[in-house]
Amino acid sequence: MTSSSTATKSPYTPSAPPLTHLENDPPLAYPTTQYNYTSAQPPPRGQYYHQHEPMFHPGTDPEIIRSFGMVDRDQNGFIDDNELQQALTSSSQKFSLRTIRLLIFLFKNLNQPSLKIGPQEFTALWSCLAQWRAIFEQFDKDRSGKINTIELRDALHSLGYAIPQSVLQVLISRYDNGNGHRIELNYDEFIECGMVVKGLTDKFKEKDPHYTGSAMLHYDQFLSLIIPFIVCD
Amino acid sequence: MTSSSTATKSPYTPSAPPLTHLENDPPLAYPTTQYNYTSAQPPPRGQYYHQHEPMFHPGTDPEIIRSFGMVDRDQNGFIDDNELQQALTSSSQKFSLRTIRLLIFLFKNLNQPSLKIGPQEFTALWSCLAQWRAIFEQFDKDRSGKINTIELRDALHSLGYAIPQSVLQVLISRYDNGNGHRIELNYDEFIECGMVVKGLTDKFKEKDPHYTGSAMLHYDQFLSLIIPFIVCD
Ligand SMILES: [Ca+2]
Ligand SMILES: [Ca+2]
Repeated sequence: MTSSSTATKSPYTPSAPPLTHLENDPPLAYPTTQYNYTSAQPPPRGQYYHQHEPMFHPGTDPEIIRSFGMVDRDQNGFIDDNELQQALTSSSQKFSLRTIRLLIFLFKNLNQPSLKIGPQEFTALWSCLAQWRAIFEQFDKDRSGKINTIELRDALHSLGYAIPQSVLQVLISRYDNGNGHRIELNYDEFIECGMVVKGLTDKFKEKDPHYTGSAMLHYDQFLSLIIPFIVCD
Repeated sequence: MTSSSTATKSPYTPSAPPLTHLENDPPLAYPTTQYNYTSAQPPPRGQYYHQHEPMFHPGTDPEIIRSFGMVDRDQNGFIDDNELQQALTSSSQKFSLRTIRLLIFLFKNLNQPSLKIGPQEFTALWSCLAQWRAIFEQFDKDRSGKINTIELRDALHSLGYAIPQSVLQVLISRYDNGNGHRIELNYDEFIECGMVVKGLTDKFKEKDPHYTGSAMLHYDQFLSLIIPFIVCD
């Protein structure tokens, strides 16, 4: 993975997605009363902020904590697919449930059996989306709200993902509405493509800890790694 | 890959999917006038059988040739996604366009840029579906039209695919309609699951020609291999 020298508007370094950062944080930074993710019982209503504020990392942007409270419509302390889709939908962008589920799948706690995220995962997801939004706007030079294939490649590159053009062609082929080779992507389509790339790359890196560019995969590992991406819809 | 000793109704050996068989046929068996797959021009109408019969392998089951003629509604010599979906849809089974496209992707000629199949690929696909139908009926012991998780595992096993139970659980999780752990699959769902398994396994085997169970994959290969499965919908 290489990262371009393009300056970004984001405070994150392009090659370090926030999720990895959080995972590597020392456990000391976590609050002592951690949420029991295996419990099926939602926390009681009315005590929402009292119950949930400690679940955010100390120093979390208050704006993100406020967003969590708004996105978590049923205030059960978790964001599910419908809540996230409602939060990300606007007149100018429409995320498919497939993309929403992929987002949740990529950011959720591994011990969480359901497709939902708590405050810490939400913080990582929200920061990542803010970073990718900034990158999208940076590469959408004419402010048309769309980026073309070349800009997509450069945008992913500046986020730390060096994707062969041939792979990118296959990835964006589903947005070809007969326009031939002039495919352009909206922000939500950019996130759709980007999250597939990010997710597969992150999983691949786990099997290639020394960044050799190759990984030895057992058949079972191979299936376990890929099938969640296929069944996400 | 192991194959069970269960006797099947199909003439194919379980571990040898028909597509591989076709690919390994000596070129001598092909007609001398091969179809030009890169041509965008459909063959002229009215000369349908005259034009197309030589494109089938000599000895192809006449029933399959007849089926091709019926499935190819616009008689352009190719089966596209809509034609295949219409052909496979009945009151008791409903294939999603996603599954249809995955089927075409898995069976289409590599040199064919569009998602459509000609007579030879159709023959392989049709034979494969007949084989899988027979396996499905064999494992649907109570003739309910559904098979459960255990039967699915055994059915895939008898087709030559030994899938870890944990992977199977993820794969069938999307058919969980709240029934908990008693997931049962219809025939079309069985084909959906099975084709993902078949496709990924076949691709993996290409990288593991000596059947060691492991494969070294470069990052670019890894992405190229998987992304077609993800964008099939
Ligand atoms: Ca909620
Ligand atoms: Ca046709």
